[in-house]
Amino acid sequence: MKILVINGPNLNMLGKRKPEVYGSKTLEEINGYIKDYFKRVKTEFFQSNHEGEIIDKLHEAGREYQGVVINAGAFTHYSYAIRDAVEACGIPVTEVHISNTAGRENFRKTSVISDVCMGTITGFGTYSYVLGIQALAHHLKRRAND
Amino acid sequence: MKILVINGPNLNMLGKRKPEVYGSKTLEEINGYIKDYFKRVKTEFFQSNHEGEIIDKLHEAGREYQGVVINAGAFTHYSYAIRDAVEACGIPVTEVHISNTAGRENFRKTSVISDVCMGTITGFGTYSYVLGIQALAHHLKRRAND
Amino acid sequence: MKILVINGPNLNMLGKRKPEVYGSKTLEEINGYIKDYFKRVKTEFFQSNHEGEIIDKLHEAGREYQGVVINAGAFTHYSYAIRDAVEACGIPVTEVHISNTAGRENFRKTSVISDVCMGTITGFGTYSYVLGIQALAHHLKRRAND
Amino acid sequence: MKILVINGPNLNMLGKRKPEVYGSKTLEEINGYIKDYFKRVKTEFFQSNHEGEIIDKLHEAGREYQGVVINAGAFTHYSYAIRDAVEACGIPVTEVHISNTAGRENFRKTSVISDVCMGTITGFGTYSYVLGIQALAHHLKRRAND
Amino acid sequence: MKILVINGPNLNMLGKRKPEVYGSKTLEEINGYIKDYFKRVKTEFFQSNHEGEIIDKLHEAGREYQGVVINAGAFTHYSYAIRDAVEACGIPVTEVHISNTAGRENFRKTSVISDVCMGTITGFGTYSYVLGIQALAHHLKRRAND
Amino acid sequence: MKILVINGPNLNMLGKRKPEVYGSKTLEEINGYIKDYFKRVKTEFFQSNHEGEIIDKLHEAGREYQGVVINAGAFTHYSYAIRDAVEACGIPVTEVHISNTAGRENFRKTSVISDVCMGTITGFGTYSYVLGIQALAHHLKRRAND
Amino acid sequence: MKILVINGPNLNMLGKRKPEVYGSKTLEEINGYIKDYFKRVKTEFFQSNHEGEIIDKLHEAGREYQGVVINAGAFTHYSYAIRDAVEACGIPVTEVHISNTAGRENFRKTSVISDVCMGTITGFGTYSYVLGIQALAHHLKRRAND
Amino acid sequence: MKILVINGPNLNMLGKRKPEVYGSKTLEEINGYIKDYFKRVKTEFFQSNHEGEIIDKLHEAGREYQGVVINAGAFTHYSYAIRDAVEACGIPVTEVHISNTAGRENFRKTSVISDVCMGTITGFGTYSYVLGIQALAHHLKRRAND
Amino acid sequence: MKILVINGPNLNMLGKRKPEVYGSKTLEEINGYIKDYFKRVKTEFFQSNHEGEIIDKLHEAGREYQGVVINAGAFTHYSYAIRDAVEACGIPVTEVHISNTAGRENFRKTSVISDVCMGTITGFGTYSYVLGIQALAHHLKRRAND
Amino acid sequence: MKILVINGPNLNMLGKRKPEVYGSKTLEEINGYIKDYFKRVKTEFFQSNHEGEIIDKLHEAGREYQGVVINAGAFTHYSYAIRDAVEACGIPVTEVHISNTAGRENFRKTSVISDVCMGTITGFGTYSYVLGIQALAHHLKRRAND
Amino acid sequence: MKILVINGPNLNMLGKRKPEVYGSKTLEEINGYIKDYFKRVKTEFFQSNHEGEIIDKLHEAGREYQGVVINAGAFTHYSYAIRDAVEACGIPVTEVHISNTAGRENFRKTSVISDVCMGTITGFGTYSYVLGIQALAHHLKRRAND
Amino acid sequence: MKILVINGPNLNMLGKRKPEVYGSKTLEEINGYIKDYFKRVKTEFFQSNHEGEIIDKLHEAGREYQGVVINAGAFTHYSYAIRDAVEACGIPVTEVHISNTAGRENFRKTSVISDVCMGTITGFGTYSYVLGIQALAHHLKRRAND
Repeated sequence: MKILVINGPNLNMLGKRKPEVYGSKTLEEINGYIKDYFKRVKTEFFQSNHEGEIIDKLHEAGREYQGVVINAGAFTHYSYAIRDAVEACGIPVTEVHISNTAGRENFRKTSVISDVCMGTITGFGTYSYVLGIQALAHHLKRRAND
Repeated sequence: MKILVINGPNLNMLGKRKPEVYGSKTLEEINGYIKDYFKRVKTEFFQSNHEGEIIDKLHEAGREYQGVVINAGAFTHYSYAIRDAVEACGIPVTEVHISNTAGRENFRKTSVISDVCMGTITGFGTYSYVLGIQALAHHLKRRAND
Repeated sequence: MKILVINGPNLNMLGKRKPEVYGSKTLEEINGYIKDYFKRVKTEFFQSNHEGEIIDKLHEAGREYQGVVINAGAFTHYSYAIRDAVEACGIPVTEVHISNTAGRENFRKTSVISDVCMGTITGFGTYSYVLGIQALAHHLKRRAND
Repeated sequence: MKILVINGPNLNMLGKRKPEVYGSKTLEEINGYIKDYFKRVKTEFFQSNHEGEIIDKLHEAGREYQGVVINAGAFTHYSYAIRDAVEACGIPVTEVHISNTAGRENFRKTSVISDVCMGTITGFGTYSYVLGIQALAHHLKRRAND
Repeated sequence: MKILVINGPNLNMLGKRKPEVYGSKTLEEINGYIKDYFKRVKTEFFQSNHEGEIIDKLHEAGREYQGVVINAGAFTHYSYAIRDAVEACGIPVTEVHISNTAGRENFRKTSVISDVCMGTITGFGTYSYVLGIQALAHHLKRRAND
Repeated sequence: MKILVINGPNLNMLGKRKPEVYGSKTLEEINGYIKDYFKRVKTEFFQSNHEGEIIDKLHEAGREYQGVVINAGAFTHYSYAIRDAVEACGIPVTEVHISNTAGRENFRKTSVISDVCMGTITGFGTYSYVLGIQALAHHLKRRAND
Repeated sequence: MKILVINGPNLNMLGKRKPEVYGSKTLEEINGYIKDYFKRVKTEFFQSNHEGEIIDKLHEAGREYQGVVINAGAFTHYSYAIRDAVEACGIPVTEVHISNTAGRENFRKTSVISDVCMGTITGFGTYSYVLGIQALAHHLKRRAND
Repeated sequence: MKILVINGPNLNMLGKRKPEVYGSKTLEEINGYIKDYFKRVKTEFFQSNHEGEIIDKLHEAGREYQGVVINAGAFTHYSYAIRDAVEACGIPVTEVHISNTAGRENFRKTSVISDVCMGTITGFGTYSYVLGIQALAHHLKRRAND
Repeated sequence: MKILVINGPNLNMLGKRKPEVYGSKTLEEINGYIKDYFKRVKTEFFQSNHEGEIIDKLHEAGREYQGVVINAGAFTHYSYAIRDAVEACGIPVTEVHISNTAGRENFRKTSVISDVCMGTITGFGTYSYVLGIQALAHHLKRRAND
Repeated sequence: MKILVINGPNLNMLGKRKPEVYGSKTLEEINGYIKDYFKRVKTEFFQSNHEGEIIDKLHEAGREYQGVVINAGAFTHYSYAIRDAVEACGIPVTEVHISNTAGRENFRKTSVISDVCMGTITGFGTYSYVLGIQALAHHLKRRAND
Repeated sequence: MKILVINGPNLNMLGKRKPEVYGSKTLEEINGYIKDYFKRVKTEFFQSNHEGEIIDKLHEAGREYQGVVINAGAFTHYSYAIRDAVEACGIPVTEVHISNTAGRENFRKTSVISDVCMGTITGFGTYSYVLGIQALAHHLKRRAND
Repeated sequence: MKILVINGPNLNMLGKRKPEVYGSKTLEEINGYIKDYFKRVKTEFFQSNHEGEIIDKLHEAGREYQGVVINAGAFTHYSYAIRDAVEACGIPVTEVHISNTAGRENFRKTSVISDVCMGTITGFGTYSYVLGIQALAHHLKRRAND
């Protein structure tokens, strides 16, 4: 089972940006932690500040991975183009957020991609990624058994 | 570690109500499944269609449990009283939903309790409860180690 | 044919509360009048000021009655939990109101339960209940004949 | 007792237009059914796709009929001119709808004429007309007895 | 100088409809009063409950009259078609209202035709027509003198 | 008969400010023209850029004048304090505007004082004042004759 | 192939009304131009300022034509009755506009009929009609070939 | 004089919940303090987290008390059912809040019960109850003297 | 203890303006009544219809008084300048209203100064001032004792 | 005559994504079809999922092409940057959509680029591109003849 | 070159009011600093808490100064009367704010005067005035050189 | 002191696009002018039509520059991703605009980046950049002196 973890804009700044909100680990440390956490799931990572690159990656993902975990950063709140790419990629996508977006600025309360994702996990810090991958893995296994 | 799982209004109808949305398992089957899933976490269950009983339970929960997983059903969308009870109970609370509420009726897109919960898990069917308990357990362990 | 008539909050005050709007009959008198009106339909009555009890009753109703006539009082305007219970109860439900809610306060113009009821009857005083039961009986008979 | 049944725009297309919503009977069949249903109430029928003709008819109605049952079709949602005519005609008017408008497109959720009608009956198919006439007849008899 | 006075829907009911708001004179009496009031202005009158007839009349008006005084009744609040006809007719149009629409129902506070009229006179009872004609006559004279 | 004409903020700039909208006459010229126009009505004039002075003047007006014509300038759009003073002054007040406010900036479309004025005259240039005084005089005479 | 071109209110004023927006050709000239343009498509024309006549015509059209091209003029923005007639007529309807409505007044940005038309063509002047007929013809031919 | 003090949901948590907002006294301490404060007014206390119980209590209150002081907690912001109960109970009701709700979360700025209460007292901590009882007592005495 | 009572626009008209809403006492009578009511609190009074004078007074108040009770009249609903002055004056300010503003016109439901006041008292007639001063005195004493 | 056809995000997925909405042809097949359709117009094609590349292309287009046909995909709904590029490119741009966006999700009903395009063609499937090019060609020829 | 600096309500409280937002310098110190900063520009200062005085001053300014720098304080957010005075004064006006209003309360995000000012400078503390004067001086010089 | 000037989408078109709004200088000329203007501040320039490149540049900027002046073009109005990058870059950022955005299209009135910038300068043409750099330099010097 091969799962792609996509991180959107400014998440390359993790560890430096607002550690009281996003924690003090860098994205590399988080990716390492995730990789180690899962024995039987192969995880790969992609980060970009470019909306178009995320869309391109989602299109490719359908041919290479069984599922995607996406933290679309601020694109979450307005990128209908990423929304359409999620819908078009043909594999299940899980939306995750590190912080509890419901308790922050108003614009963070709207996600334009949630309705085309399988589900959403918000607010558990770095552990949101772990839960997202696990949810995806569980879903894929169950579907395989049907 | 003792965690309380609260289910709000109409969730006692699981298995009968809209199985294409909520699945075909009854609440008892779900509860049994959850109980079996976790070896080291003691889970207890509470369901009520009465807003007041859920508030009462949340108040008591602070004295008996380390955390709460809540699926507040339709109260999610308007019960500021449950919101205040979550805020007042003094232990971490995780919000879960079986269906992907973002892809359904408009009124289901608003949660008035999210901002005072630790985090939210939406859309993974019965497995949302498993993820919710795990998120809580992870959080409690990490806090214990600090 | 057995039909349940549910009355929501403050309808136990009928006869005392705003008689120029709701008329001067008490709820007991109205219930008696309804009982007498229908020869071949068995009507039973339930009133509660507790949202949870109305939800409980709707769940039970599916097992005991062929239909429900509901005047949800002020719960009409915000109780998505009762809305879900109407949707979940599995039998046809008809919404009635004594007064013409469209001609009163702004908040009374919105019903959150109408879309899951079979139909709505508003503004004919006590006679709204009679019409509601008749509509339900007609529907049940037609369905029985199909 | 003489009651006028007014049907607004596109209701001449009944039987052809969206039978899954409006049923398969034509307007003539419905009118025949209504006529037969009531022994002691004389019903007459008027249909027009012209807002102005409906207004003219409502003005005349005050001189010839004791009451009006109106299904204003799509005029329901924006014709303040019909609303004023209902208010001006001097006899009680009952609003009816065949389908449950609350469960359809957003624009159908607003009625600009409800507040000047005596009451509203929505969602019971063809039988909505029967209930509307009956409500009117009941009201007129009660008033006559006062 | 020849001026056309157009009255929209339900204004043929003047004298009967809500005399506490619109006064007790009939439209014929008002028209007579206006005719007598002005010695040097020739006034003609047109009333219709049909939006299309008012549009047709406005188109013709450009060829026969120097100006129009219009009380568009409830069409005032939604008829963009009349608005376009006012704009297209090529002669100055003055909007009048008998009652003070700002102090009545919410929907009466919006006029969709005001911005293409020369000006608006609201709230002076029957005398609003007199002021409207006078305003028009004054404007036409001044323009003739330029 | 003694009528007070109140002009609000920036109307002392008439003749200089946007002559294509407000015309090229100064306020003094307009006042002179109005004074000359009416033989039997005594008009007095008051202009202020101070909201409080206009309120003070309205309070006094009730003791000295039979009516007020007010062009409240930009205060029209937000001064609820002037609105309350109009309501409190105890004599009829007519609102006038030189330009057709409905065809200009959005904020000019709302008048917070219209509902407590007797009526409103908008868009006839300087002649709006003449019509306003005439409307008031007509009203006062009719009332005197009752 | 027989296609009906419907023009709504004020389009009989083409050539006279705002030529800088709508061009200087009259409706007759446009109709002639369209007739000449298409050799194999038979086009017929209907214009009315009466909403009800347009609804009547749409109902008849289903029996006589293969498709309709409609420029509903200002009815586009509020006539839900025409919308329902388009939906009910049973043949494909194409919406056209001469001017680019998105770049004009706010009220012109909403079309209440677009969602039940096959498609919409806006902004190409008189040529919008040509494109609309061609789109319809292409659609009808393709469907005939299936 | 007998006055009932009703406290809504989560107010049993006083002293524990957000002491920086609600102060550090428990509800029992507050009740004791109030009881001692008034010599000639008999105060009784009722707290519930159940909307229905508060409604029931309000209905009973009309028979046993001369007035009610209510802090409806979060029900303040959405319970139209409590609003109707306040309106129906037949004795004067005063709304109080401990904190200055205008300076907190947005949802706390709306009270759906204020318009049917006699008056509202907000923001004076525990002392709000004292002022509420005093206001009620003053009102009752004045009315008794009339 | 010296407390300033500020009354905003139109409150000099008390006794004359809408006695059914504001009572029949003049402002002087109310001030006298307040003065007599309190033995140990020295109260001074200031009324103005000028927003600027109220701001000036609030600035001075910080140097001469321990607290302010303000009824800002209609300025309550839009004067952010008074709001800033309340915030800037450096002493506690209590907002009072004679009538129950929540049950009147829509614009009276918003107070732009509440969030910077200590608390608000609404709806108890003249007695609102008494409660406001008492609340302030209680607060000042308690603070003095800390 | 050289015309550029720009396709925005996710349109490279045509044929795979939602064929019931977008049809089953790939973008290459569509481009081939368009190329073959027009004999005298030279068409070139550009697709990108990157907003910035589309902006760059629009800037270049002004130097190489006589016009642009753009299907901006989901960028249509929020990319004011593309809107400004359309406005800045100096050649006429026609907006096209394959599906009838007015009948789909709410967010697809808004186009932020329509007002700076020459016109818009929506809902005719692949044939929308053909109509778009033809409209542009017609416009360019007419302009050349002026 | 003579430039007038206008400060609106509560800016006389600078140094005392919220120094963490507005800094600790008094208005006199700021004015002194500005005066010293510019050698070749003559600056004069005016502060008032009275909307009317600011309007009067703006009217006079056109005769005495070449430009105005205005910090309208809270009047910025609602005084359309000052907006009209800015527009009417006939010389360029620059809007400045000390704090970054976009990052504070919601009501501070709207400026009703920006659209008639030449430009706006927000958030640079006291230095905003320096930049405002400099911008004005640069503009006046450039215009003088044209 | 090294300051980076970032220009967003379409600003490479300066000189060509709407010179009556943006002036006739090209971006290169503006950059040259700025470079020459400041002797002691080293300015570097970056322009991109790609949102992602601007985000990347802002991340790098924190390591190389003391401050940033940004004209984000149309990204100003919706790019929450750039907003987050501004917040994350760790150095002060000043927002500038050439035109007075408050006086143009509605969508230009909202800036989603203002609240995380130090301040904003709008409407002074090319000179806005000069003022922006100066404001930044002044801020950096003052901070260095602390």
